[in-house]
Amino acid sequence: MAVNLIEPDSLLAVEGIQLATVAAGIKKNQSADLVLIELAEKTHCAAVFTQNKFCAAPVSVAKKHLKISSPRYLLINSGNANAGTGDQGMRDAFETCVLIATECDCRPEEVLPFSTGVIGENLPVEKIRAAIPSLHKQLQADNWINAGRGIMTTDTKLKGISRQIKIQGKPINITGLSKGAGMIQPNMATMLSYIATDAAISHELLQQCLTQAVNLSFNSITVDSDTSTNDACVLMATGKAGNDEITQVDADYELLFEAICEVCLYLAQAIIRDAEGATKFVALQVNTASSVDDARQIAYTIAHSPLVKTALFASDPNWGRILAAVGRAGVDFEIDKIKIFLDDVCIVSDGARDPAYTEEQGQKVMNQKEITIRIELQAGEHSARIWTSDLSYDYVKINSEYRS
Amino acid sequence: MAVNLIEPDSLLAVEGIQLATVAAGIKKNQSADLVLIELAEKTHCAAVFTQNKFCAAPVSVAKKHLKISSPRYLLINSGNANAGTGDQGMRDAFETCVLIATECDCRPEEVLPFSTGVIGENLPVEKIRAAIPSLHKQLQADNWINAGRGIMTTDTKLKGISRQIKIQGKPINITGLSKGAGMIQPNMATMLSYIATDAAISHELLQQCLTQAVNLSFNSITVDSDTSTNDACVLMATGKAGNDEITQVDADYELLFEAICEVCLYLAQAIIRDAEGATKFVALQVNTASSVDDARQIAYTIAHSPLVKTALFASDPNWGRILAAVGRAGVDFEIDKIKIFLDDVCIVSDGARDPAYTEEQGQKVMNQKEITIRIELQAGEHSARIWTSDLSYDYVKINSEYRS
Repeated sequence: MAVNLIEPDSLLAVEGIQLATVAAGIKKNQSADLVLIELAEKTHCAAVFTQNKFCAAPVSVAKKHLKISSPRYLLINSGNANAGTGDQGMRDAFETCVLIATECDCRPEEVLPFSTGVIGENLPVEKIRAAIPSLHKQLQADNWINAGRGIMTTDTKLKGISRQIKIQGKPINITGLSKGAGMIQPNMATMLSYIATDAAISHELLQQCLTQAVNLSFNSITVDSDTSTNDACVLMATGKAGNDEITQVDADYELLFEAICEVCLYLAQAIIRDAEGATKFVALQVNTASSVDDARQIAYTIAHSPLVKTALFASDPNWGRILAAVGRAGVDFEIDKIKIFLDDVCIVSDGARDPAYTEEQGQKVMNQKEITIRIELQAGEHSARIWTSDLSYDYVKINSEYRS
Repeated sequence: MAVNLIEPDSLLAVEGIQLATVAAGIKKNQSADLVLIELAEKTHCAAVFTQNKFCAAPVSVAKKHLKISSPRYLLINSGNANAGTGDQGMRDAFETCVLIATECDCRPEEVLPFSTGVIGENLPVEKIRAAIPSLHKQLQADNWINAGRGIMTTDTKLKGISRQIKIQGKPINITGLSKGAGMIQPNMATMLSYIATDAAISHELLQQCLTQAVNLSFNSITVDSDTSTNDACVLMATGKAGNDEITQVDADYELLFEAICEVCLYLAQAIIRDAEGATKFVALQVNTASSVDDARQIAYTIAHSPLVKTALFASDPNWGRILAAVGRAGVDFEIDKIKIFLDDVCIVSDGARDPAYTEEQGQKVMNQKEITIRIELQAGEHSARIWTSDLSYDYVKINSEYRS
């Protein structure tokens, strides 16, 4: 069902990173659900997390551990979110760190735990305990594809990408994974995503790089306006590529930043392409706004409108619904100046149907699987671009049958 | 499909109000689509309208006419919204006022036009012109039921209610109609609704009465977060009941206000009971918040969450989705203090599943057609209550096939 999303055949290993995946029995269908990522010593690790007030226990533990230590291991389970689980959830999340520390000979605070799946059920710690020795044995560098499968929940496709760039003549590998298909409106954070590079870069710049890249990618997508309790995105830099450490915003930084942005954008868009029930991949581009906030507000109002989303599902060029969504976005603009486009077809000008518009032109664009809805406010110089999916029978089916 | 909504057999006539309904051929299915309401001289008329920036042409014309004149006629068509129609739409809306003025011997500015239906198509003025003589002939006081049918679009049930109270020993009739099933999140306004009373009340107090009643009713419902371009609510007071005119907020005013609130609440809830594809009628009650805005913000975030709405459709007590929606509402509170209830079943306390909660208890409530989700924030003394529906296959079906 995913929209123009092809699974990668292979992903580049990143020197200093090893991964392992097993089926621990957390998911009901016995597929892979537990992933361990080992980071070489001196790897820098940057992360952003959900802003949901009810952040999951593993998010709280991971944030705490990041503050006091440099992570050596990431432990990720799918099938259970360990969210809404109170004190027991906190104890369980920490216990899984202790289990990895014992098995892998590190301190518990050098382990970051992550969980994704059903909210409100206790983490099956015993299943995880039983699976850890086998998990540890399987650590290897060329295991990104398996790890990508291990973090999937309602995803129908593995989401991963690799890029190779050169810095100071040294080849630099970047490989990233993401998962997510529903409960997607990341808020200054993201769904689960793990990105690694062997570039040498200072910790401070790495975090800056991640924050900026995430704002342009994961923080610019929405499936259903629902911000998850478990969103997390981790960027690891092992420094094994042999380049001199990047310590300032220079040409090398820009090169790396651009490649990491590209990886983040691919992974974020992959989540939208594989959104629950999605049949369309839709970009919302709002231009010439008086502020970025205004532009984003209008883009999200359109993207969250159930009426726009069902019209997209029906391939119905019902532009009145787009116009109504723009009008209720709470943004000030002159309606006589606004223009609305479906791809390059102008549907609205001067606050009404464009005189040259024909339903046939609109229908042609709406029949496509990928559509750009562009709004020109003519109120200023700011823009925003976000991505979303449509609202189909299958979205309702997937989310009304999720726990049954 | 409507949830516990019974059509009225009869509605009380209101002295000074006559109504007529015909099928003018605006709707494709040849059912009633044109309604005329005649107001006796000296009738006071209060109104609130949509805050959507792209308000429809008839809304602009009606607001203008209300400013300069006292209305004698309301002309309402269903099947075409005359929204997103630019200058042509404004000319068409005014033209229908001229047609009524000519037929009924009044000035065009004494006519208020209203439209509801598809956005972005020009109003078929010729069909309206042809129907007006027949419409005029059918004016009669006992015609509320027919008028209620004439304003329906995707509504499956007629929405109307009457109340009789006594003021100064005089019987006072109040009768109201509403329509609406989708594109429903009225914003300081409402869907189409027409309420009349024969009470004598000053114009200023009538508007105050309407504004307050609407805030507690029509402005507290949401189906899909989409604010229509055509929302309007009109309250008419003919003064024919023989009571001394109410000119201050006294016991008589409170009596009338309470009855009008009751009528507005019934009509607003009727819209939710008949929401597109609705199988559940859900009240969101947020208590002990530090402000009304906070309480409403949380209530609307839950009400708009596609994940909560699909869980309601599935009768799935997936309380994690409610908790996640509360957490992303952007409201500050202490998660350790929050309690969440399904009816009287406590599902969350201390930020996690209540120790005494069992899935069976939650399932029992979720199996009901009417459910109250109650949040106790324990952060202050303010409350808000809103009403919403679930998200079903039929919502998608109705809205993806609307124009086909």
